[in-house]
Amino acid sequence: MIGEILATGDEVRSGALVDSNSAHIAQKLEEAGVAVTRHTCVGDDHAVLVAALREIGDRADVAVVTGGLGPTEDDLSTAAAAVAAEVSLEFYNQAMQEIERFFKNRKRLMSDSNRKQAFLPKGSVMLSNPIGSAPGFSLTIGKCTFFFLPGVPVEMKKMLAEQVLPRLPRVSPEHRTLCLIRTLSTFGLPEAATGERLSGLSDLFPGIKLGLRAKFPEIQIKLYAYGKEDQNLQEALEKASAWVTERLGKCIVSMDGSSMEAVIGRLLLERNAAVAVAESCTGGLISHRLTNIPGSSDYFLLSAVTYSNASKISVLGVSPETIDQFGAVHEETAKEMALGVKRISGADYGLSTTGIAGPDGGSPEKPVGTVCIGLASPQGVFSKKLHFSFGSRLMHKKIFAQSAMDILRMNILYGWPEKNA
Amino acid sequence: MIGEILATGDEVRSGALVDSNSAHIAQKLEEAGVAVTRHTCVGDDHAVLVAALREIGDRADVAVVTGGLGPTEDDLSTAAAAVAAEVSLEFYNQAMQEIERFFKNRKRLMSDSNRKQAFLPKGSVMLSNPIGSAPGFSLTIGKCTFFFLPGVPVEMKKMLAEQVLPRLPRVSPEHRTLCLIRTLSTFGLPEAATGERLSGLSDLFPGIKLGLRAKFPEIQIKLYAYGKEDQNLQEALEKASAWVTERLGKCIVSMDGSSMEAVIGRLLLERNAAVAVAESCTGGLISHRLTNIPGSSDYFLLSAVTYSNASKISVLGVSPETIDQFGAVHEETAKEMALGVKRISGADYGLSTTGIAGPDGGSPEKPVGTVCIGLASPQGVFSKKLHFSFGSRLMHKKIFAQSAMDILRMNILYGWPEKNA
Repeated sequence: MIGEILATGDEVRSGALVDSNSAHIAQKLEEAGVAVTRHTCVGDDHAVLVAALREIGDRADVAVVTGGLGPTEDDLSTAAAAVAAEVSLEFYNQAMQEIERFFKNRKRLMSDSNRKQAFLPKGSVMLSNPIGSAPGFSLTIGKCTFFFLPGVPVEMKKMLAEQVLPRLPRVSPEHRTLCLIRTLSTFGLPEAATGERLSGLSDLFPGIKLGLRAKFPEIQIKLYAYGKEDQNLQEALEKASAWVTERLGKCIVSMDGSSMEAVIGRLLLERNAAVAVAESCTGGLISHRLTNIPGSSDYFLLSAVTYSNASKISVLGVSPETIDQFGAVHEETAKEMALGVKRISGADYGLSTTGIAGPDGGSPEKPVGTVCIGLASPQGVFSKKLHFSFGSRLMHKKIFAQSAMDILRMNILYGWPEKNA
Repeated sequence: MIGEILATGDEVRSGALVDSNSAHIAQKLEEAGVAVTRHTCVGDDHAVLVAALREIGDRADVAVVTGGLGPTEDDLSTAAAAVAAEVSLEFYNQAMQEIERFFKNRKRLMSDSNRKQAFLPKGSVMLSNPIGSAPGFSLTIGKCTFFFLPGVPVEMKKMLAEQVLPRLPRVSPEHRTLCLIRTLSTFGLPEAATGERLSGLSDLFPGIKLGLRAKFPEIQIKLYAYGKEDQNLQEALEKASAWVTERLGKCIVSMDGSSMEAVIGRLLLERNAAVAVAESCTGGLISHRLTNIPGSSDYFLLSAVTYSNASKISVLGVSPETIDQFGAVHEETAKEMALGVKRISGADYGLSTTGIAGPDGGSPEKPVGTVCIGLASPQGVFSKKLHFSFGSRLMHKKIFAQSAMDILRMNILYGWPEKNA
C-alpha cells in the first residue's frame, strides 16, 4: 500500500517553519505497513493545492494532509479538497457540535469564523479533534483515501493515532511487512563513537537495521526489524538490544526511549528518595525537565535558580569566602550549592550547576562552555568540572543540564566514580 | 521565476530524519526573488527519483536537489539526473582532482567507491564542495535549471551560498517579485478572534498577505508584502503593521517577532530593574525562558521553584496559616510567594505561579488547569486566578508561564489593571 504526505501552509513552503509533521507521519505510516513514497509541501494557494491533491489522488492509496483547517481566510485545505474531489461543501452538524463543545469546555467564546470549520466536503467522514477547534475529515480523491488533519503538531499527532491509524485499509498478511522499532536512549558518547561501537550489528543480526539519531543532547539508537512474523522479529530485537546494551554499558539511559527525567523519576520513586536542585547556568532547565514528569511532586522538592552571587549566599548558604576565593564557577562553589539545597529542602539528593553558558562572561581560565556540577547524596558530596564548546547559549544550557542529570543517574545506579570516591 | 526543492534519501522519506534543508533553501531562494511553490521528498528509488525530476523539470524554472551524491550504492541522484536529462555519465577530471585534494588535505585514504563521485551527467557544470567529498553539479532537465547538492546540512548551506545563489538566472527587475516579511508576536487572543479582528486587512492593504501562525502559546502574525519596489513594500508593511497594532492593542507582545522573554528583558534593562520568580506549577519554565536571553544575569536574580509546601514556607516565607486556610493554589498564597521572592532577592519585581498542571491533583473547586499568578511590584502586590484546559501537563506549564510573564509585561508597560488596582 502506497502512502503520501502533503504539508500545506506558507510558513512551511517559504521556509519560515521547518516541517517536522511529515517525518512523524511517515514513521507512523511505515510502522503500520504503508510504504511512504513521497512527501510534498505547498503553500496557501488554492490552485496549487487542488493540483497537488489530484496528483496524489492518482498515485497513492492513502495520504495524510496537514494544515489549512483553521478558521481564517488563509486556511484553504477544506475548500481545495472539495474541488479536487468534485463535491460541494456541506454543513456538518456533528462538526458544529464538536466545535461548540470545544469552546464551551474551555469557557471561551466561539467566533463566527469558527462556523466555517463545520463545513466539510460532501461525503467526507469527520475526524474528531478533542484538543483543538478544527475537526479533520477523511475523503476519497481519485483512487486515494485522504486524511486531513490540523497542522498544530500536538493535535495532528493525537488525531493521527486515534483517528487515522485505526482507519487505515487493512493490509493482508502476505503483503504486509511488519516493522518493529526499539528505541534506546544514550548519553555520553558522540554519534561517531556510538556508531563505531555498534559496527558489525547488521552482520551479527541480519534483518535488523540500525539507525542513530542525534536528538541533542541525547543519541537515540533505533533498531528496526523488518519481516513477516511478529514473534521472530520480537526475538531478534531482544537479542540485538541486549548486544547494544553490552557494547554501550552505562551510557544507556533507557531501553525504551524514556527521557533522562523519566528515568531519574523512576529511580527516585523506587528508592523513596527526593531531589532538590541548585541551578545557576542551567537557569531552571533541570527543574523544568524534572517537573515535566507527571507525579514529580512526589520526589522533586525545590530548585533554587540562584543566578546572582547574592542569592547563592542568601538562599543556599554558600559561603562568601568560597566565592571570593574560587569564584562562582568552581567545584567548591558547586559543592556548597549542592549541600545547601539538600539542607534547606530536606531532600536526599542535592544537585547543582554553576557555569558559563555564553555568549559572554568567559575568560581564558574559564571559557564559555565551562560548567561545574555538584552532587550531595546520602553518601557525601562530589563535584566535577566539564567543558563543552557548542555554538549557542541554549545548547550549552541543554548539555549542562543533561550532564548534571546524568551524574545524578549514575550515582543512584552505580555509586561514586572510583577516582573521586 | 518559479522554484522547487527536492529532498532525497530514505532517512528523510521514512521519517527517521526531519528535513530541515528544504526550509533553509526555501528561505534563501525566496530572498533571491524566486517564488518557491513546492517541496518534494522522495527516497532512494531510481524510478521515483527520475519521475520526480521530470515533473519538476516541466513545472519549475529553477530547482535545488539535496542528497544522494555520496559514494555508496544507495546514492542515486547523479544517475537519476542523467536519465531524466537523457544524457550519459561522463568522467570529470576536475571532479576527480577535487575529491583527491579533499582526502589529501584531511590525510584520509580515498576509497575506490569515491571514484564514482567523479562521474557527472554529460553537459553538467560541476559545483565545488570545499568541505566534503561529494562535488555537486548543475544541469538542465526539461525547462528547469537544477542544482544538485549534498544532503549534509553544513555542506549544502555553504554550496548554496557560494555556488548556487550567484548562478541563479538573473531576474530582470520587471519580472522580479520581492517578498518582505514582518512578524508580530501576540498573546491573549485565540487564533480565530485574532483573525476576525484583522479581517479586512487585505482589502485595506492590497498586496499585503496575512498569515496567522499558532506557535503555542503565542499567535504570530506574519505580513507578507509582494511587489516590485522595495521602497513601496516597506511603506505598505509599515502601514499594515500600524493598523494591526491598533486593532490588537495590548495583545501585541512585539513588532519584530521577539519572544516574550526578550521583550521583558528589554523592558527591565530600560528601567534598570530586576526580577525574581517563585514558581510552583511552572516548575522552572519561566526561569528557563528568562535565562535563555544572553545577558539576562543583568536583570534576573533568582527563581525559587518551590514545589513542596514546606519549601514555600521555608524558602519564600509564605505563612503556614495562609496555606492552611486557603491551600497552596490560591491568590493569597500567590501574593505571599511573589512578595517573598521579591524580598529575599532584593528584586524590583517578584512574579509567582501556583497551580495544577495535571494530569492528577485536580479537585472540583480547583480543577487541573487552574493557576494563580502573583506579582509584587514597586507599586504593590496583585494576584489573579486563571483557568485553562489543555490536553497535557506540558501545555499547561507553557500557558501558565506565558500568562505570568504577560502579567509582568503588562504591569511594566501599563500599570495595574483598573479593576484590581
